[in-house]
Amino acid sequence: MDPLSRIERALNAAVAQADAPGCPKLLARAMRASVFPRGARIRSRLCLAVAMACGEDAPDVTDAAAAAIELLHCASLVHDDLPCFDDADTRRGRPSVHCQFGEPLAVLAGDALILLAFQVLAEAAAVSPVRLAPLIGVIGRGVGVPHGIVAGQAWECEDSADLALYQRQKTGALFASATMAGAAAAGAEVTPWRELGLRLGEAFQVADDLRDAVGAPEELGKPVGQDLAHQRPNAVLELGLNGAIGWLGELAERAVESVPACPGRADLRSHIVSETSRLLPRQLAKVAA
Amino acid sequence: MDPLSRIERALNAAVAQADAPGCPKLLARAMRASVFPRGARIRSRLCLAVAMACGEDAPDVTDAAAAAIELLHCASLVHDDLPCFDDADTRRGRPSVHCQFGEPLAVLAGDALILLAFQVLAEAAAVSPVRLAPLIGVIGRGVGVPHGIVAGQAWECEDSADLALYQRQKTGALFASATMAGAAAAGAEVTPWRELGLRLGEAFQVADDLRDAVGAPEELGKPVGQDLAHQRPNAVLELGLNGAIGWLGELAERAVESVPACPGRADLRSHIVSETSRLLPRQLAKVAA
Repeated sequence: MDPLSRIERALNAAVAQADAPGCPKLLARAMRASVFPRGARIRSRLCLAVAMACGEDAPDVTDAAAAAIELLHCASLVHDDLPCFDDADTRRGRPSVHCQFGEPLAVLAGDALILLAFQVLAEAAAVSPVRLAPLIGVIGRGVGVPHGIVAGQAWECEDSADLALYQRQKTGALFASATMAGAAAAGAEVTPWRELGLRLGEAFQVADDLRDAVGAPEELGKPVGQDLAHQRPNAVLELGLNGAIGWLGELAERAVESVPACPGRADLRSHIVSETSRLLPRQLAKVAA
Repeated sequence: MDPLSRIERALNAAVAQADAPGCPKLLARAMRASVFPRGARIRSRLCLAVAMACGEDAPDVTDAAAAAIELLHCASLVHDDLPCFDDADTRRGRPSVHCQFGEPLAVLAGDALILLAFQVLAEAAAVSPVRLAPLIGVIGRGVGVPHGIVAGQAWECEDSADLALYQRQKTGALFASATMAGAAAAGAEVTPWRELGLRLGEAFQVADDLRDAVGAPEELGKPVGQDLAHQRPNAVLELGLNGAIGWLGELAERAVESVPACPGRADLRSHIVSETSRLLPRQLAKVAA
């Protein structure tokens, strides 16, 4: 089964837990709408690619790790879109979850997806109990305090924030979780995989800043110009358009260089080259070429 | 060290993770305000009492389980108080978290507390890896889908809800997690402990309904009359005042009877008698006597 199919199957099985009798139907629907239709699944595919490069020996654990990463990412999007944050009407080209189901169900769907990530990990751990704690450790650190997504998002509530710190927490941290969770799922040492995740996360954030700044709503599937409107840090506002494009290219190169020694190193490097080449918004790819 | 001191120490250590350099200060403060000053800590004390009754042999795991239960409870209160749900201005006699820190930080503090619960469990699991999956299983089920707190809360978004189902999910589920997590932390079988938690949870919910209906804001530390105002199910509206008082007494008795065989059964029964006798609001204790 190809990686994306594995991920979709694992996510489907996870979200289906809410379809059990006795669970409120609207909550189940709001959770499903938070996870499907799919986005690029960049983080979960990265997690799976690292596990395969490390010679995965417990595919169920890999699938659970990848699904957990994606569920937490989806949860963060649903909460980020809430009226008290971005107040975004659309996401992935559809009405955002709070626009479809109302604010209460958007809050609850996000909460339920965070919890579901850990439920999924615990269920898969029966086959390999000793891998569960490291997995939760690296995943928790990518999302929770002190330096995960919630911390990154909370910088928007402070009077000032350091751009690098903000982006590393808001985006880089979960990418680092994705690479380290892939290693942990395969029983490999996690620390050497952190750097790759951070570099990819930074590259992804710069690409997201570029899309927000140059305006490609149909490519982005969500409103553009949000960073300027909300006075949020953005690499284009900080470095200029050409500076941001150059920085993106350099981060992509550094990511490829940072892949640690592992059985499937060559394949993983190809995966990363392919992924990062798709990050630059289409209308800018011509400018940069 | 007495049980409450153990719990406060574990909660302090958990929340202190947000005090690390690089974590936004306001998020750390909002998280602390969500957990302290303490409420009655009924659920975490119950978890600890069950672990001790089961002959706990890994106190760090017990403390982590109790802290996780309490962090998840606090997270649910912070999110329940949000303007899109109860819009409560006060909690435990103080301004609610969103009134103190604003809605964005209240959403994020709740998210971060949910995540912290699992981070705390994973950190403690180093001493006993095989207990982690059962712990996360029973705790996740008490809070997540299909039948935990978030499901209970989501019934408020449906056109109609069954009172028993709603209360079992919104309150009973986490009490059942507390008793089962206490057993799991001590390496005991969890299933026999579910019934006790459900009965205590139901008793607690009926007591909460009584306080909301008869109006004891200084005892409750939060606004009263909320169930009628929000047209939510409430045992007093359903059974009448005397009916609800009688039902509370019967549930307390059933709880004591349902304590499974364990080394510290007598002590645990005394603990439950003492806890449940304090559930009835003071002005009603005279009526019922």
